[in-house]
Amino acid sequence: MLEAVEQELKRQVARLNHPSARLFQEMLAYHMGWSGEGAGREAGGKRIRPMLLLLTTAGCGADWLPALPAAAAIELVHNFSLVHDDIQDRSEKRRGRTTVWKRWGMAQGINVGDALFVLAMQAILDVSHHYDASTAVRAAGILHRGCLDLTRGQFLDISYEKRQDLTIEDYWPMIEGKTAALLAAATQLGAILAGAEEERQGQYRLFGERLGLAFQVLDDMLGLWGDEALTGKSNAGDLVEGKNSLPILYGMARKGRFAQRWARGGVCPEEASELAQVLREEGAYDFCQREAQRLTHQALEALQHARPQGEAGKALEALARKLLKRQS
Amino acid sequence: MLEAVEQELKRQVARLNHPSARLFQEMLAYHMGWSGEGAGREAGGKRIRPMLLLLTTAGCGADWLPALPAAAAIELVHNFSLVHDDIQDRSEKRRGRTTVWKRWGMAQGINVGDALFVLAMQAILDVSHHYDASTAVRAAGILHRGCLDLTRGQFLDISYEKRQDLTIEDYWPMIEGKTAALLAAATQLGAILAGAEEERQGQYRLFGERLGLAFQVLDDMLGLWGDEALTGKSNAGDLVEGKNSLPILYGMARKGRFAQRWARGGVCPEEASELAQVLREEGAYDFCQREAQRLTHQALEALQHARPQGEAGKALEALARKLLKRQS
Repeated sequence: MLEAVEQELKRQVARLNHPSARLFQEMLAYHMGWSGEGAGREAGGKRIRPMLLLLTTAGCGADWLPALPAAAAIELVHNFSLVHDDIQDRSEKRRGRTTVWKRWGMAQGINVGDALFVLAMQAILDVSHHYDASTAVRAAGILHRGCLDLTRGQFLDISYEKRQDLTIEDYWPMIEGKTAALLAAATQLGAILAGAEEERQGQYRLFGERLGLAFQVLDDMLGLWGDEALTGKSNAGDLVEGKNSLPILYGMARKGRFAQRWARGGVCPEEASELAQVLREEGAYDFCQREAQRLTHQALEALQHARPQGEAGKALEALARKLLKRQS
Repeated sequence: MLEAVEQELKRQVARLNHPSARLFQEMLAYHMGWSGEGAGREAGGKRIRPMLLLLTTAGCGADWLPALPAAAAIELVHNFSLVHDDIQDRSEKRRGRTTVWKRWGMAQGINVGDALFVLAMQAILDVSHHYDASTAVRAAGILHRGCLDLTRGQFLDISYEKRQDLTIEDYWPMIEGKTAALLAAATQLGAILAGAEEERQGQYRLFGERLGLAFQVLDDMLGLWGDEALTGKSNAGDLVEGKNSLPILYGMARKGRFAQRWARGGVCPEEASELAQVLREEGAYDFCQREAQRLTHQALEALQHARPQGEAGKALEALARKLLKRQS
């Protein structure tokens, strides 16, 4: 299935083929992990969203092959957002490789993201080759909604910068947009293309959404207290860059020792490990753990209600459990 | 018709309405010319693309009202590209007002462009409310093709920076993507939604494309030799910023006095008027004039073959002639 996703992604990106734009294609292929220094499976990321989509289609008892363009579409949207996110955050590394904007400049970076977005829009309508046109329009509508939520989450994330008055209530709408929206779209799309009835679609959508929220909370925890050898990134990063992560927002709202230090700004890498410890002592770790468990429970409950079938059903649950127990 | 376009644009952008994102909406409304300092009709631009689309639909003898979402979609795509273009060029002014990125920062600017793009994709599928789903899928396909051409043109434009070996052959694929692609999509969409037969669609598409090319050549001429009081911008801009305009590429290819000065780089505003004069003496003005006339002729010929009807048909020709004789 993963191989089929990769082939479909390549087929979609090949739309860009044009004699005058070889370097342009190369930029996209580089970001997707297919070419350039450090290319390979790792460089492309986990392809979680397309896998969730296809497993949902299969879990509803339908053939997943015709859903491939939708799977590619959701992964292309995800990658468009990563390329722009790296520019917005001025991140120089992504999956251990130099980011697109760092390599070819900010202007080309913005344009590469834009092209990935267009390709995603073309991919989703390719489902009209196997399903009727009204299903294609509906599927595109779901993806568009996810994309709009994504930009809203991104707006919130950027607008939170340098704010000292954030609370935990500010966290959820941000990650609902930034992380959960696309996972919710993935599982809903999978169910729609399988022809599942409305209520079941809703359960799958809820499963994707709660999984996305739990996923992000865990990501935030790993960013502060993860095993650096496994996560492959420094535990100082989120503190130094001032990321709006759940433990940090929890600490700000607690108004204790962490909040006092945080308000002064400019955390340096050397004091990060102590600050992470302060956060743990103030209860941030336990709080995040409880939230992650609550959301995971909701996700698995929604999945149970959706009654996924056969091998795909088991794989879906296994994928969810694996994502939520991951160390990297 | 212009008022209807404006209302439809507002209706489409209202999709963003969300209690957590008031400032986000404001950013989009500001760019569209609806709010903030200097708001008003002028601030929104000429709305040429949606007008071309609707006049084409009407010129084919069909009702233009149901085509409004497509008209809004094409204008939203155009505006997405302007917001990103301003960041890529680091332009601080657009239609006499501070650009979005300059006002709210680069990160928000990228995100505003992204949101306009998503809204465009939602708008084009709204045609499914009045036409059948397969027409909506076809219409979206035309728009997507235009968008992909747009990113390809943008790639070329950025990659031409600092190159000294450009020729006039490098110019056409760039403006085919940057300017002509969306105008071609506008007229083709107008014809498709009117239910025009294939051949007529092709003529309308060709009309839009040639009009777009002529439009850009004229724009480039006005950028060097226009009446500054009418164009509202300095004739030094393109030379100082090193824009890949047709007169400049012509001058580079001539390898005369202009090319020698150009190769040394760093043109300052004070010498711009003399350099523009050198270009004129080397034949750039006459060359561009001939190209603009050739393309205009092709555009009007295609329009004639498309046999537009009634008032809208006359308005279409008048709009084309007006655009091609404009001084600003």
